[in-house]
Amino acid sequence: MSLIRGRFKNDINKEVSRYTASIPYDWRLYTYDIEGSLAHTKMLAKQKIIGSKDAREITHGLKAIKKEIEQNKFVFKEELEDIHMNIESRLIEIMGKAGSKLHTARSRNDQIALDLRMFVKNAIQGTITDIQTLQKALFYVADLHQNVAMPGYTHLQRAQPILLAHHFLAYFEMLQRDKERLLDCFKRTDAMPLGSGALAGVSYNIDREFVAKELGFKSITKNSIDAVSDRDFIIEYESAASICMMHISRLAEELVLWSSSEFGFIELDESFTTGSSIMPQKKNPDVAELGRGKTGRVYGNLLAMLTTMKGLPLAYNRDLQEDKEGLFDTVDNLNSTLKVFTGMINSLKVKSDVMINSLNEGYLLATDIADYLVKKGETFRKAHAAMGKLVRWAIENKKSFSEISIDEYMKYSSLFEDDVYLITAQSALEARNNIGDTSPEQVKKALKAAKIKLSKTNFV
Amino acid sequence: MSLIRGRFKNDINKEVSRYTASIPYDWRLYTYDIEGSLAHTKMLAKQKIIGSKDAREITHGLKAIKKEIEQNKFVFKEELEDIHMNIESRLIEIMGKAGSKLHTARSRNDQIALDLRMFVKNAIQGTITDIQTLQKALFYVADLHQNVAMPGYTHLQRAQPILLAHHFLAYFEMLQRDKERLLDCFKRTDAMPLGSGALAGVSYNIDREFVAKELGFKSITKNSIDAVSDRDFIIEYESAASICMMHISRLAEELVLWSSSEFGFIELDESFTTGSSIMPQKKNPDVAELGRGKTGRVYGNLLAMLTTMKGLPLAYNRDLQEDKEGLFDTVDNLNSTLKVFTGMINSLKVKSDVMINSLNEGYLLATDIADYLVKKGETFRKAHAAMGKLVRWAIENKKSFSEISIDEYMKYSSLFEDDVYLITAQSALEARNNIGDTSPEQVKKALKAAKIKLSKTNFV
Amino acid sequence: MSLIRGRFKNDINKEVSRYTASIPYDWRLYTYDIEGSLAHTKMLAKQKIIGSKDAREITHGLKAIKKEIEQNKFVFKEELEDIHMNIESRLIEIMGKAGSKLHTARSRNDQIALDLRMFVKNAIQGTITDIQTLQKALFYVADLHQNVAMPGYTHLQRAQPILLAHHFLAYFEMLQRDKERLLDCFKRTDAMPLGSGALAGVSYNIDREFVAKELGFKSITKNSIDAVSDRDFIIEYESAASICMMHISRLAEELVLWSSSEFGFIELDESFTTGSSIMPQKKNPDVAELGRGKTGRVYGNLLAMLTTMKGLPLAYNRDLQEDKEGLFDTVDNLNSTLKVFTGMINSLKVKSDVMINSLNEGYLLATDIADYLVKKGETFRKAHAAMGKLVRWAIENKKSFSEISIDEYMKYSSLFEDDVYLITAQSALEARNNIGDTSPEQVKKALKAAKIKLSKTNFV
Amino acid sequence: MSLIRGRFKNDINKEVSRYTASIPYDWRLYTYDIEGSLAHTKMLAKQKIIGSKDAREITHGLKAIKKEIEQNKFVFKEELEDIHMNIESRLIEIMGKAGSKLHTARSRNDQIALDLRMFVKNAIQGTITDIQTLQKALFYVADLHQNVAMPGYTHLQRAQPILLAHHFLAYFEMLQRDKERLLDCFKRTDAMPLGSGALAGVSYNIDREFVAKELGFKSITKNSIDAVSDRDFIIEYESAASICMMHISRLAEELVLWSSSEFGFIELDESFTTGSSIMPQKKNPDVAELGRGKTGRVYGNLLAMLTTMKGLPLAYNRDLQEDKEGLFDTVDNLNSTLKVFTGMINSLKVKSDVMINSLNEGYLLATDIADYLVKKGETFRKAHAAMGKLVRWAIENKKSFSEISIDEYMKYSSLFEDDVYLITAQSALEARNNIGDTSPEQVKKALKAAKIKLSKTNFV
Repeated sequence: MSLIRGRFKNDINKEVSRYTASIPYDWRLYTYDIEGSLAHTKMLAKQKIIGSKDAREITHGLKAIKKEIEQNKFVFKEELEDIHMNIESRLIEIMGKAGSKLHTARSRNDQIALDLRMFVKNAIQGTITDIQTLQKALFYVADLHQNVAMPGYTHLQRAQPILLAHHFLAYFEMLQRDKERLLDCFKRTDAMPLGSGALAGVSYNIDREFVAKELGFKSITKNSIDAVSDRDFIIEYESAASICMMHISRLAEELVLWSSSEFGFIELDESFTTGSSIMPQKKNPDVAELGRGKTGRVYGNLLAMLTTMKGLPLAYNRDLQEDKEGLFDTVDNLNSTLKVFTGMINSLKVKSDVMINSLNEGYLLATDIADYLVKKGETFRKAHAAMGKLVRWAIENKKSFSEISIDEYMKYSSLFEDDVYLITAQSALEARNNIGDTSPEQVKKALKAAKIKLSKTNFV
Repeated sequence: MSLIRGRFKNDINKEVSRYTASIPYDWRLYTYDIEGSLAHTKMLAKQKIIGSKDAREITHGLKAIKKEIEQNKFVFKEELEDIHMNIESRLIEIMGKAGSKLHTARSRNDQIALDLRMFVKNAIQGTITDIQTLQKALFYVADLHQNVAMPGYTHLQRAQPILLAHHFLAYFEMLQRDKERLLDCFKRTDAMPLGSGALAGVSYNIDREFVAKELGFKSITKNSIDAVSDRDFIIEYESAASICMMHISRLAEELVLWSSSEFGFIELDESFTTGSSIMPQKKNPDVAELGRGKTGRVYGNLLAMLTTMKGLPLAYNRDLQEDKEGLFDTVDNLNSTLKVFTGMINSLKVKSDVMINSLNEGYLLATDIADYLVKKGETFRKAHAAMGKLVRWAIENKKSFSEISIDEYMKYSSLFEDDVYLITAQSALEARNNIGDTSPEQVKKALKAAKIKLSKTNFV
Repeated sequence: MSLIRGRFKNDINKEVSRYTASIPYDWRLYTYDIEGSLAHTKMLAKQKIIGSKDAREITHGLKAIKKEIEQNKFVFKEELEDIHMNIESRLIEIMGKAGSKLHTARSRNDQIALDLRMFVKNAIQGTITDIQTLQKALFYVADLHQNVAMPGYTHLQRAQPILLAHHFLAYFEMLQRDKERLLDCFKRTDAMPLGSGALAGVSYNIDREFVAKELGFKSITKNSIDAVSDRDFIIEYESAASICMMHISRLAEELVLWSSSEFGFIELDESFTTGSSIMPQKKNPDVAELGRGKTGRVYGNLLAMLTTMKGLPLAYNRDLQEDKEGLFDTVDNLNSTLKVFTGMINSLKVKSDVMINSLNEGYLLATDIADYLVKKGETFRKAHAAMGKLVRWAIENKKSFSEISIDEYMKYSSLFEDDVYLITAQSALEARNNIGDTSPEQVKKALKAAKIKLSKTNFV
Repeated sequence: MSLIRGRFKNDINKEVSRYTASIPYDWRLYTYDIEGSLAHTKMLAKQKIIGSKDAREITHGLKAIKKEIEQNKFVFKEELEDIHMNIESRLIEIMGKAGSKLHTARSRNDQIALDLRMFVKNAIQGTITDIQTLQKALFYVADLHQNVAMPGYTHLQRAQPILLAHHFLAYFEMLQRDKERLLDCFKRTDAMPLGSGALAGVSYNIDREFVAKELGFKSITKNSIDAVSDRDFIIEYESAASICMMHISRLAEELVLWSSSEFGFIELDESFTTGSSIMPQKKNPDVAELGRGKTGRVYGNLLAMLTTMKGLPLAYNRDLQEDKEGLFDTVDNLNSTLKVFTGMINSLKVKSDVMINSLNEGYLLATDIADYLVKKGETFRKAHAAMGKLVRWAIENKKSFSEISIDEYMKYSSLFEDDVYLITAQSALEARNNIGDTSPEQVKKALKAAKIKLSKTNFV
């Protein structure tokens, strides 16, 4: 029978035991649980709440258990509910009386809060590393194709010439914000909750600051009731992860589009594509699609947790057990997606000729020609109107800008002169030369700035 | 190397292989996959697309593979991506040439659509059975306590007397709708997609109606492009599941409230409660809380799938692979929740004395006394206003309705007479005697109607 | 002061009044509220609960109020909270004593349940009509271009030839299911809740069946507690709307893709596109994009309502007031989207030459050539492998299938003969001739079946 | 005809115009739009892109338009789509040629990005102020009832004695984190996007830093493509708002519970409660319920925006127009909820006698007695087990801890002595005296710390 059912006459229903057990997934927290118990033990001894001999025995036992788990020799038992009771029971099995003292001045409520905070801190570090690596891949491709021009799109219609590098650096910026958001979440996760007990604190003279220091926490939580019922740090991680996956889904959409026959802008490496069971010719961008599809589950996990927390009275309620699986799923899917996208970006082949050719069709220079008129004295609205009519005529007559004669131009504005033919994709690019623009000069600066950001490794 | 990468020079990246593999979870579809292949093979032979000897060999091989899986002897391989390729590869391994013919006139795109529809049909039947069993438990408790009165609540404030049975039957009604919704979903799931090929149909003279009949489908899908990209049936199941979990969450909330010290209306059986690791006296309604908490993940899975499908061009895209884990998670959590709630309801102890005593406090008869005035000739709005003032006075003077003298009553309306004292919780209950009301007579009828519904077993 | 605060000494806080008032949006239910009150009045008189003269006066008054609202002469007052109290107060203002009798045997709890069910029934009819009209547009375009072939896609990679009509009919099928789902929702909405009172029923001898008949309801609700706290019908509508919007988002995505320079498959009519404030040449598919974007809010409204209902104890709680705005928003956005998409589809121009030309590139006949080998005796897996290698060679040597010599073919399989050149897009289309396939014959049948479905107008 | 349809032969379809117009809601951005245009104009003149006379005229015109809007004299036109075109058109109407120059070196894509960032910055300041005010109310009630003890709950079961002030301060902590999250979001919102043009930057020599300074932005955005398609700051605000509403929903749940007859811990002020249309005695905590219910819509708006952004290719797409209504709705509902909750908390009456009496029932001292045994030498697990059995016996024999004789105690552990009777709710409170605990000493310190936090007003 369970260690904690002294008050009960009957054991728990078998089906209920299976239903309520979290050990099938929370075993994964074992490192944090044991680290936390080691620090707790050290503190209990320092404060003379338990004897130093007991502390040594417990420490020894916990380390032995860790080894058992790592060597797959530990038998996890469903009837012991969770990772905490599995470890404590085994400790008592090994150590007897000393083991029975471990749970002094502690509750599972503050213990799980500690384990989860340690897990999230670690997850954030992993995610940031993976984001940074993907940023490096984006930087690499951008840097490699610094001078490749392509159509920039709005509404998926060709809009204005841009540099491919500028396009990839847009994703670099998004990922930069993702890192910042995760770091902000880290700050709030980095508070040590142990000592909050079940909800009211504990009746022993403990040293919470000491435990925090032992475990590398920057601060301790300030209110015991809040500390055992707070899962903000999980929701905040899942929210930052959702925004990051949204960014990935946009990149994925473009990789799918760009590797289609119709766009033909890039070719994904074979090792990042898959075949069809029936159509022998297929080479599908499955990795990009799957990454895009996984956005759904990451959003779903966020909403699941928000829903679960809604309307719960203080303090701990068993509903909170639902915090783990979604969190683990989000971390695993986000991090693996970042990793495979890194490989995919690093190995993709840019078909720069196709990109550059695409600039010739779609009247992408219309804005520049309108601006040309403005610089000759026209107001912008009138220049825009004139160019609108000119484009309409050009489409109907199947002429590109360079094929329009100066006389034809002048039917739309008397300001046109021969220098209108000097407006080219290249001139358009060079003209956009303010901070953040797509000109070669600005993009070079942006690449330099990106390189500096990537060189910073101590982001936490 | 994979069976389907003839076109590729290089093999897939290891990490990508792990990322894209669905076998870690879709192995679970093996029964449906094999059943589907058996029917497909039978049809191929009937249509003389493959020889009858080949068909016999394939059939034999598929049955052998099923046995291997059931006996845990089958080795699932991640590099073979999914359940379909794992089984087909093994078949070729065992059967050679004959095995190579199985995938004739078929694509994984229509194959997975088939497997999933079979899975969902089966899941619906399971869920409906579990709902019906929970309804039986609700009926049992309602029937057992037919005459127990209690306060009915609105805004969690005591409102009017009701019968406990009437309250439980409200949940019976909700669950009845849940079953109906699932049956409607079943209708739409019950269309056989095989033969849709990759997206355009197949170039063999197959017999789709035959396959449908073999597999117990009522109809066949009508458009091959739609058939391979349609996951409506999954979303619809997840939506019905979400509504059902919402109902469960309301029941759970009440079980938590009612087993609190403050309400004390019920006592949950020990075998459905858990203890605390630190507080020896605790007996917590964890099962109810966990069921309430699981509402989050079921909602999350619905939204995940809706998100994943958003904006996908036709036909099949790899994003769709994300349909499975959420579906499995919803089925598992919904069905197990229904099962443990059944046990919890069946074993709970109603503390009818506490319920009945609660009727004495809170002026629950105010509406009836207002109605009494109406029946004596007052308009309802004036009667309501008079009673509002009377209640205010009674609170200030700490008197219950029975403690107010007739003279005091008459200060609020001259229509009051001695018969006002005949208004009791019992009279209030009996007065609500229209269809669907809480009177003992109506509740008896409702119980009878519920019993009839429960006797119907062939709901599909 | 409010009609219903007899029990209170103080009036409500101003800010609270504004916060809790629903009249800024629920005024929209006025027709249903008045219709419901008219039927309720008729029943009260029939049952002799109020006199027939009072009933006539109330009826007269309610009709006058309806006119006032329709003529914008009615002054909605925030301090009267909702549409019910606004109308009742005005009735008392006009009619005095008779008006005060309207609320006999009724609560706002069952009244709002009635109004909402009437609204949703009406909304469903509107949505189904709009869906049907969009189906007609899809049918029209499909029918008009019966013989136009195009590449079918999976993974946004060209897969196999299909007919454009077949593609549009895939959306027809999706919308057909949407209608069915809405009809199923209608069935469950079509139960009359009035008479449930606050939660326990009413203490008057009313006739609920009569009211149901008057208001065109098929049945009455069966449990008063359930009836006042049930919002399943709203969630079910919002869920069906979400699936429908998901379908629209897929269509929208394709319209955006197809009208890009890269695809160039269609041209949207000018009246359904917009310009840019800066780029004079732009013609953007804004309607399609906005429709795709609106998917978000429709999903959001569904989640909102599911969240709001989670964990609420029975019966009515004020949280339920949050049911309206999301519902109205979903109905308005879904129906307007269906309408503008109808116009957009009806007016789009198919560029069939571009579609047909696209068939020449991308080895779309690879499956058919593999099937050709199978029909000559090869197993499918081996045929697939041979074709994979052939395609790889063809890409490297920049040859299309028709440019490959028979000797070159035979290097990949000795089964190849001159008749391999008979395999064309047209033959591929014709070969897929099973029910639901893309062959001209099957598509003709499908169009015929669609026409019959569209001729049915009494869908409710 | 529209200013920007020079390229089009036909005007936009009426229904489409209504469908795509954002002016019904984005008029609300007029202040930011005009402020932004004023700064843009100033910069254009400074850079000599327009003449200083034109600049003066435009400035004059924009200020006149602002006045028109504020005086309700401005006619918003649906056919002009949005707030930008409405203002620009009016400017041209008033100012003619000068007005036509305003849109030089600008696109609506960067203009709306600017307006929205200004709106969100303002919203954050408002929300933080409202949160701080609610914190003050919580502090006020906590401070006022510093010595009131009550049962602390886990699983809604009485757990251990706590101070009411400690409980309220738990919410204080949650709200503190909410403010921090909003401030972090502010940092990322505080980057000026104007100058990004349609997507590629602009071909004029502008001064973005100058505009940023004029408008009070700390920095400028770094990549023009990212700047026009980034809505992270909206999602991040909505995410922080969702977490904050989740906190509010927990507080709301407790206010509802505590004002029930069963708990009776508090009484809400009449001005914050409502009556029933049918039950004269009712006094309902509607404000708390509605606040709890509104959690749904705030979550829904978050999901809506995440869904809308999913899978969009760069750069601007019309889907983004859907960013506004949900954002406005979240800001309005969050801020009004914070405000009414402030009033409700400030005016609630604590029934401290009921709270204190509740401590006597439920064996809340069991942990302390177990700890007592530990301090006498028992291990915690054994002490817990002994106390479990003792509680079971006490329940069966209906004895409270103080009613158990020392002999009876000693049956469960020989370590019990007479001093066990010194354990009381008061001693239990005082014993929990570590940082963050519920002891009077610690709570006094926490109140002091809270006061200091509240005194800081320059949070942005």
